[in-house]
Amino acid sequence: MPKKENAKHGVFYGVGIGPGDPELITLKAIRTIERCPVIAAPRTNGGDMIALNIVRKVVDLGDKLVMPMDFTMERDVARRQESYRRNADAAAAYLEKGMDIAMVNLGDVSIYSTFHYVAEEVEKRGYETKMIPGITSFSAIAASLNMSLTEMNQPLHIIPAVGEKTGESFDLPGTKVMMKAGRRLPNLQKELERRGLLDVTSVAINCGMEDEILIKALEKETDISENAGYFTTVIVRDKKI
Amino acid sequence: MPKKENAKHGVFYGVGIGPGDPELITLKAIRTIERCPVIAAPRTNGGDMIALNIVRKVVDLGDKLVMPMDFTMERDVARRQESYRRNADAAAAYLEKGMDIAMVNLGDVSIYSTFHYVAEEVEKRGYETKMIPGITSFSAIAASLNMSLTEMNQPLHIIPAVGEKTGESFDLPGTKVMMKAGRRLPNLQKELERRGLLDVTSVAINCGMEDEILIKALEKETDISENAGYFTTVIVRDKKI
Repeated sequence: MPKKENAKHGVFYGVGIGPGDPELITLKAIRTIERCPVIAAPRTNGGDMIALNIVRKVVDLGDKLVMPMDFTMERDVARRQESYRRNADAAAAYLEKGMDIAMVNLGDVSIYSTFHYVAEEVEKRGYETKMIPGITSFSAIAASLNMSLTEMNQPLHIIPAVGEKTGESFDLPGTKVMMKAGRRLPNLQKELERRGLLDVTSVAINCGMEDEILIKALEKETDISENAGYFTTVIVRDKKI
Repeated sequence: MPKKENAKHGVFYGVGIGPGDPELITLKAIRTIERCPVIAAPRTNGGDMIALNIVRKVVDLGDKLVMPMDFTMERDVARRQESYRRNADAAAAYLEKGMDIAMVNLGDVSIYSTFHYVAEEVEKRGYETKMIPGITSFSAIAASLNMSLTEMNQPLHIIPAVGEKTGESFDLPGTKVMMKAGRRLPNLQKELERRGLLDVTSVAINCGMEDEILIKALEKETDISENAGYFTTVIVRDKKI
């Protein structure tokens, strides 16, 4: 990763702001945002800046510049890459002038973060990037459900549900956390029922947001498919024998 | 999990304080500690209260009561369980008087936490427990190494190295994080070399502490076994093909 040590250039910070509750932001995240003159914030197609709105509750943004970041939700890799490049170009214009940027990112910046893709492009352009970790959605969900994600000496598997077609991850020992399970939820539910795992499965939808839904143990009749959006997480513990 | 709704009893909070850098504590953790009259803090055999000393840097403990918690490091399950029960009994004495307790816990409280074991015993005694999530060590390590823990749609596996005897976890797709790898490090290093994975392996020792050692890519000659203690984490990424 190329880094310019030139002090005249700005640094591109990825700031993990946690799962949604503004109280779950760290001191370091707040101080990093406070120090940066430019805040880069992902924007939905509908024009919402979810991460920025969370940050606003605990940081006074004053006269900071806000740089909205639009990303395509298309599956096409080339189109996605193009949107990362476009946002890196926009960031570079500020970095070139010596202005530090804090990109606010829901959850943690090292786990399935959008920041990572933009940072790769920013580094290609010769600018320095730095990461400030955040509370992961699965840590927050476990806390809200008042349960441990791990059993003594057993592993924990974090699995993007999009890559999960046959349910074979359920055979792994330890706890399985399926991220972004929204659209796959009806299929997962059928697969879990077939394997007799419903009662050791928890579901969290929009954890930490105002419309949060938490289900500690799934049942055959549970129908949450219409509420299950992008921020749906399924946690499958080992069957007790 | 039985919960007493009796308002006269205290609540036993598990507070994740992150990996060691006091700046990586969340607002919620700070406010929870500030609100509790009793702080329960694990103490090493040598008499150090590591988590408490980190918290002291950002919270004025004033005249709060500190309840030191001693745990056995023995492998014997019955002896460990006995130490959880002893600490739960000590906590119960305060909870019974209506005093809330914040147990400070390095990292996150849902991932291989000591809090979880004590909380089970506290709940058995009829008291309410609550969890405040913290930054995990692996999120902090990834940030310090300035790298993502995940590749697009690939899983992330968190594995306690104590259960890892043959290195077969290295065959899992995605990124493998081996926690508490200290004593197993020489064996892991040999296994990684045999599999041609040294150059995609990072090692972090005491990340966030004053004596932190970070190695982005392991080499055959790297000898860190004498520095590798309890807080040693090994991160193995997928071999690029």
